[in-house]
Amino acid sequence: MNSPLNSPSNTASSNRVTANAMLARTLIERKRDGGRITPAEWRVLMSQYAADEVPDYQMAALAMAIFFNGLDREETGALTDAMLHSGAMLDLAHLKVGRVDKHSTGGVGDKVSLVLAPLIACLGVAVPMMSGRGLGHTGGTLDKLESIPGFRSDLSLADATRLVETLGCALIGQTREIAPADRRLYALRDATATVESIPLISASIMSKKLAEGLTGLVLDVKRGSGAFLPELDRGLTLARTMIDLGADHGCPVVALLTAMDRPLGRACGNAIEVEESIMALRGDGPPELMAVTYALGAEMLVLGGAAATHEEARRQMEVAISSGTAAAKFQQIIEAQGGNPAVVDDPSLLPQAAEVELYFAPRDGVVAAVEPKTIGRGITALGGGRSRVSDMVDPSVGFVISARPGDIVRAGEPLATIFARDSEGVVSGRATLSAAIRIAEDAELPLPLISHRVSSGGIEIYEP
Amino acid sequence: MNSPLNSPSNTASSNRVTANAMLARTLIERKRDGGRITPAEWRVLMSQYAADEVPDYQMAALAMAIFFNGLDREETGALTDAMLHSGAMLDLAHLKVGRVDKHSTGGVGDKVSLVLAPLIACLGVAVPMMSGRGLGHTGGTLDKLESIPGFRSDLSLADATRLVETLGCALIGQTREIAPADRRLYALRDATATVESIPLISASIMSKKLAEGLTGLVLDVKRGSGAFLPELDRGLTLARTMIDLGADHGCPVVALLTAMDRPLGRACGNAIEVEESIMALRGDGPPELMAVTYALGAEMLVLGGAAATHEEARRQMEVAISSGTAAAKFQQIIEAQGGNPAVVDDPSLLPQAAEVELYFAPRDGVVAAVEPKTIGRGITALGGGRSRVSDMVDPSVGFVISARPGDIVRAGEPLATIFARDSEGVVSGRATLSAAIRIAEDAELPLPLISHRVSSGGIEIYEP
Repeated sequence: MNSPLNSPSNTASSNRVTANAMLARTLIERKRDGGRITPAEWRVLMSQYAADEVPDYQMAALAMAIFFNGLDREETGALTDAMLHSGAMLDLAHLKVGRVDKHSTGGVGDKVSLVLAPLIACLGVAVPMMSGRGLGHTGGTLDKLESIPGFRSDLSLADATRLVETLGCALIGQTREIAPADRRLYALRDATATVESIPLISASIMSKKLAEGLTGLVLDVKRGSGAFLPELDRGLTLARTMIDLGADHGCPVVALLTAMDRPLGRACGNAIEVEESIMALRGDGPPELMAVTYALGAEMLVLGGAAATHEEARRQMEVAISSGTAAAKFQQIIEAQGGNPAVVDDPSLLPQAAEVELYFAPRDGVVAAVEPKTIGRGITALGGGRSRVSDMVDPSVGFVISARPGDIVRAGEPLATIFARDSEGVVSGRATLSAAIRIAEDAELPLPLISHRVSSGGIEIYEP
Repeated sequence: MNSPLNSPSNTASSNRVTANAMLARTLIERKRDGGRITPAEWRVLMSQYAADEVPDYQMAALAMAIFFNGLDREETGALTDAMLHSGAMLDLAHLKVGRVDKHSTGGVGDKVSLVLAPLIACLGVAVPMMSGRGLGHTGGTLDKLESIPGFRSDLSLADATRLVETLGCALIGQTREIAPADRRLYALRDATATVESIPLISASIMSKKLAEGLTGLVLDVKRGSGAFLPELDRGLTLARTMIDLGADHGCPVVALLTAMDRPLGRACGNAIEVEESIMALRGDGPPELMAVTYALGAEMLVLGGAAATHEEARRQMEVAISSGTAAAKFQQIIEAQGGNPAVVDDPSLLPQAAEVELYFAPRDGVVAAVEPKTIGRGITALGGGRSRVSDMVDPSVGFVISARPGDIVRAGEPLATIFARDSEGVVSGRATLSAAIRIAEDAELPLPLISHRVSSGGIEIYEP
């Protein structure tokens, strides 16, 4: 695969580039000095960028100027539109049902998408779900799905459309057809330390989500030490920016702020997170995973018009799980995307780690923290994550962590299981767990699992 | 000529680039967040950049982060060193005399370098002078010199060294050998609106000046509407930054702040500025040009050890001009660099404009302004300047403006002469002068010609 940065426009060779370069310089200078870029200028700039007619070095300078000076609501919307219209869209307007996706800002152990997609699809709301790969300490839904033998996420837009029509769901990656300007800009931001800009994050997410032809979007904004934006106020700002952006594009957005000061659920790794997702769909998921899944799912079902209230939505989801309908839907989706559907009945068909070893509490005490960043980096050290986009991922490795912050533990008690390729991995895994699971005399309260709900109506303290 | 931006490292293809790219991203992120880059990191980063191993898009993001968060004294020095050592240096340490250059931040009608170089060289201080070309509204010394038939500024370092040894002066451009990292970064900053950063400006100037092997540097910091940094406080900050940078590198720097709310002298254009410079060397320069030349020259002679006081230096310069020694030195330099030395005796050998027309005062009043930016852009409109680095320059065109701010004028009185290629140019020239020379009922005082002197001793109000 070519890197998105690997393009001829990185050289300032043609006259056309030079003329465009002068426009780009004017816009960079204006943004640098705190001015605004108009919708028409965003359209021209981003279509030139998508066509390789504006060089990456100018876009990098602009991204850094935006990092410092921001974009207002209209500019963020215009950038979103410009990136959206740089590519193709899923055409699902003929479907009679609501079309709702869920987006998470990313964390460790966050396998909610794998549970939610079949669960919501089998309740009559279409879920055209576009996910990403893991990078840095956070995992990615695509990597998890691809640990299922045979599973393919690189569907064409036509195939994805057909799946949403027939099964109510498709689990795909960002194809080359969708928002190519975003794809190129995202790779550039990663290389130039300009990822952490709320308007750029918002425009990037929303340009892809709008390309899915959604009628609603539910956002899971993680907070705490393992989150991309650890501080509550930054998370709330992102939520409000996304809600405004959705409102301006006819796509209602609801956001929940959830805890990422510890991993979500027990399994952290690719195949073992698929296994935990299957267990969740079969009614046997860990409580925090189920609570977040139900909370986000209730928002999706109400936004999608399948339930009038969150209580009704919750009952529908419980029935879909207890009846086996949700697990069966996951099986159908896996089969339709080329994967082995038998994994749902027998998760031991998923890739298995060569070495599986328990990790024991080194002393008596209280679990003061299970540090998600340390766990995430530990998965990468085991070969199960990426420090670079081009890295290969070993699906079998990771950790299953039963210890939760606040647990009282005794020396020698098992706290976690290490899944590794070899004995060297086991050693690395032990070091990771010993750093990540902090045992102390006492512990502060962890963050509330779901703390806030943000919608066009404003910010509320979350009450289930 | 290849653009300095035209390099293979603009693609993120090789593993080596990827490893360097990760270091660069770390440094960008740190600078973005207000941190410092260490001297060792600057060395690695800039040597990789000079070797095309760090892509322009990362350097562009770093430059914008520096625009916002600045560089401290040590960082500015380390960047200067790193750029200096990316290339070769003039080796003039064996000369027994001081080696002093003058640098101006650029303006309109600023031909001081052409007068100063021979004047100071004939008084026993070596002047290894490296100049630039015009861009935007400001002219460039190289463009002016190259209007002399046959004159070549693209000397090798060996030839330049030989000229300084034999004549005490060489008038050259930034060769490919000198500070290539600066050359590449400067082109990038121009394309990414990151030129106006005082630490980046200072490091860029000083890396080239130190490559000349100087024992002293005099800085002409322009202020007012036609200056690169119009505000006095920004000019003073640049002066102090350069003085600190020089002090840290054993090269004393003295700066004068001079007026660029009006053109300097009367001639604005390439060949006509050479003519005015020749007249100045022959004792017939306009008063403001001579005042700035003598003030800067006195600093050069004292820094170079040829005079004990400014008064002594001034007397030496007056004698060098009245005796014909300075003009003769200019003739020798022109001849040594391939130009026709007869222009000094007969300036009509310089390129002559096809159309020469007077411009008359449209009404009675006081000259409220002679706007340098408007004049500079008007020269470009006549074909005598550049909006892009690749533009060709017509040496013959420009304006000679006799009107000065504060002059009382009567309708129909000649204020200026237009030098143009054709009648279309004359029309354009009239429009320029009509916009640039503002006549009103009364006028505010123009800026003092030389307002401040800045040295390692601090800032003083200038007293001649």
